[in-house]
Amino acid sequence: MAVYTEVSDDDLDQFVAEYDIGAVVSCKGIAEGVENTNYLLQTDRDTFILTLYEKRVNPAELPFFIGLMQHLAERGLACPTPIQGRDGVTLRTLCGRPAAIVSFLKGVWHRRITLNHCAELGPAMASMHLKGADFPLTRANNLSVSGWWSLFEAIRPRAHEIKDDLAEVIAAELDELERRWPTGLPVGLIHADLFPDNVFFLGERVSGIIDFYFACTDFMAYDIAICLNAWCFEPDGAFNATKARLMLNGYRRVRPLSADEVDALPLLARGAALRFLLTRSYDWLNTPPGALVKRHDPMEYYRKLRFHQGVGGPGEYGIV
Amino acid sequence: MAVYTEVSDDDLDQFVAEYDIGAVVSCKGIAEGVENTNYLLQTDRDTFILTLYEKRVNPAELPFFIGLMQHLAERGLACPTPIQGRDGVTLRTLCGRPAAIVSFLKGVWHRRITLNHCAELGPAMASMHLKGADFPLTRANNLSVSGWWSLFEAIRPRAHEIKDDLAEVIAAELDELERRWPTGLPVGLIHADLFPDNVFFLGERVSGIIDFYFACTDFMAYDIAICLNAWCFEPDGAFNATKARLMLNGYRRVRPLSADEVDALPLLARGAALRFLLTRSYDWLNTPPGALVKRHDPMEYYRKLRFHQGVGGPGEYGIV
Repeated sequence: MAVYTEVSDDDLDQFVAEYDIGAVVSCKGIAEGVENTNYLLQTDRDTFILTLYEKRVNPAELPFFIGLMQHLAERGLACPTPIQGRDGVTLRTLCGRPAAIVSFLKGVWHRRITLNHCAELGPAMASMHLKGADFPLTRANNLSVSGWWSLFEAIRPRAHEIKDDLAEVIAAELDELERRWPTGLPVGLIHADLFPDNVFFLGERVSGIIDFYFACTDFMAYDIAICLNAWCFEPDGAFNATKARLMLNGYRRVRPLSADEVDALPLLARGAALRFLLTRSYDWLNTPPGALVKRHDPMEYYRKLRFHQGVGGPGEYGIV
Repeated sequence: MAVYTEVSDDDLDQFVAEYDIGAVVSCKGIAEGVENTNYLLQTDRDTFILTLYEKRVNPAELPFFIGLMQHLAERGLACPTPIQGRDGVTLRTLCGRPAAIVSFLKGVWHRRITLNHCAELGPAMASMHLKGADFPLTRANNLSVSGWWSLFEAIRPRAHEIKDDLAEVIAAELDELERRWPTGLPVGLIHADLFPDNVFFLGERVSGIIDFYFACTDFMAYDIAICLNAWCFEPDGAFNATKARLMLNGYRRVRPLSADEVDALPLLARGAALRFLLTRSYDWLNTPPGALVKRHDPMEYYRKLRFHQGVGGPGEYGIV
């Protein structure tokens, strides 16, 4: 959110000259995206997004992310397509940072989620999973079970600043999830951060999926579990089973779920809630108020975790 | 810089429906502009800027600013043109704030100022002054001599935090400028904040002037004095008389300067330096580090003031 790296006009002109995309007619820093610097770049031919990768992204992982977007775009998924320079290279350097130009996607993301948005999200997510299935690179999900303990250790000393019993709740949950975490579910390429601000709509239809910088190789049903958390709760905290049912049924029309995947959903949803509770707690405790990066309330995910802990079975998510 | 007000999709759709500009296909917050919230708004017909006016802009003054842009655009100046709603109204309300949609200007602003940029700025500024001459509304310059004392009083107790002798230098300068400030120079509509980030170029030509929210009625030569400060110093602090000469000669080709105006330039340049020294000092002392708004170094203008104090006559600005 907000621009971290200012690109001088000379640097920009020199960078864009490496591409066959026309001459720059406008370049505006975008106040969105938490991790990187993004410019909306207009040339006399088309509109693009110019991204400079800041310190939260590991440069060694960029070929995975760039390659993935290329792979998905080639298979017809509406996602940012990395643009090749005249030399065929997509990942370059600008202002001392790794940088890439990708295609611009029309669409807006919705802050108020409707039933239809959830119904549309399901097949879009399933289609992404199918198109990503033969992506040859893999990347471990470092924000799954094995990564949670170290995050927990980092926040434990000050967890009480967020909520009295936060450390106890997390410790017990971690124990249980580690013991019961499923194995053998279908694995594939997942987005792992498919929140509403990463899904664009034009009218009532999904027009694109963006921000693949958490993408990794994990249970495809875990992506669904993240979306149960991110899309199916109302602003007042109530779980909307209709939204969940529409999303899941839409997903299953494109990629059927196995019985094991369906059965695992409540536990995966707990895991997804815990993952965002942990990272939000960490950011909350380590980001000064008023900083450039907006802090998200960790308690939202504390309450979601509590909800999933009380779920008796996948039927409560609206599916049978 | 950065978005202050988040506009929900529902609010946006409802707002845009008041206009005959097509359907929204994209809307991105822009991380530029210090005072207001700006979105780059794309519809299926064209690109626009949507501005929500935040608390630093006095709503009572908005009809002046909006009317001025309308006036200048009608006379052919490349500046943001306020778009009328279907009801003919340009200034509306969005998310509880005054808001307007204006045309989008192509171009980029330059961080590294060349001789040519200064040569192009002169006639563009003069043209703006000529086109603004018959604008029927007036607005006092509250950041000229009469406004400086109260700004000074606000920073005086902590001025030493910026520089030991800052309060003494400002007090002496204020006394002298108040005593010697010119009268009777040609008055007109001035931009009053014509810094490089408010002047767009396409290739080597000025493609537009933006951000009229400091515009007011004052000596036209004072706008030139502001530009002497903002465009004609090198990053190392050296004054570049060639840039000044190119700017002034370019200006005079479009609007000749009277002998009085030329003679007054050194004093007006001191006043302009003091004005930005005062406001930057105020912001420096009252903006926490790491806040959303980027702080500009007041010492840059302390040094510029010192330079102008040593100027013997307008010849040192490269003009005769």
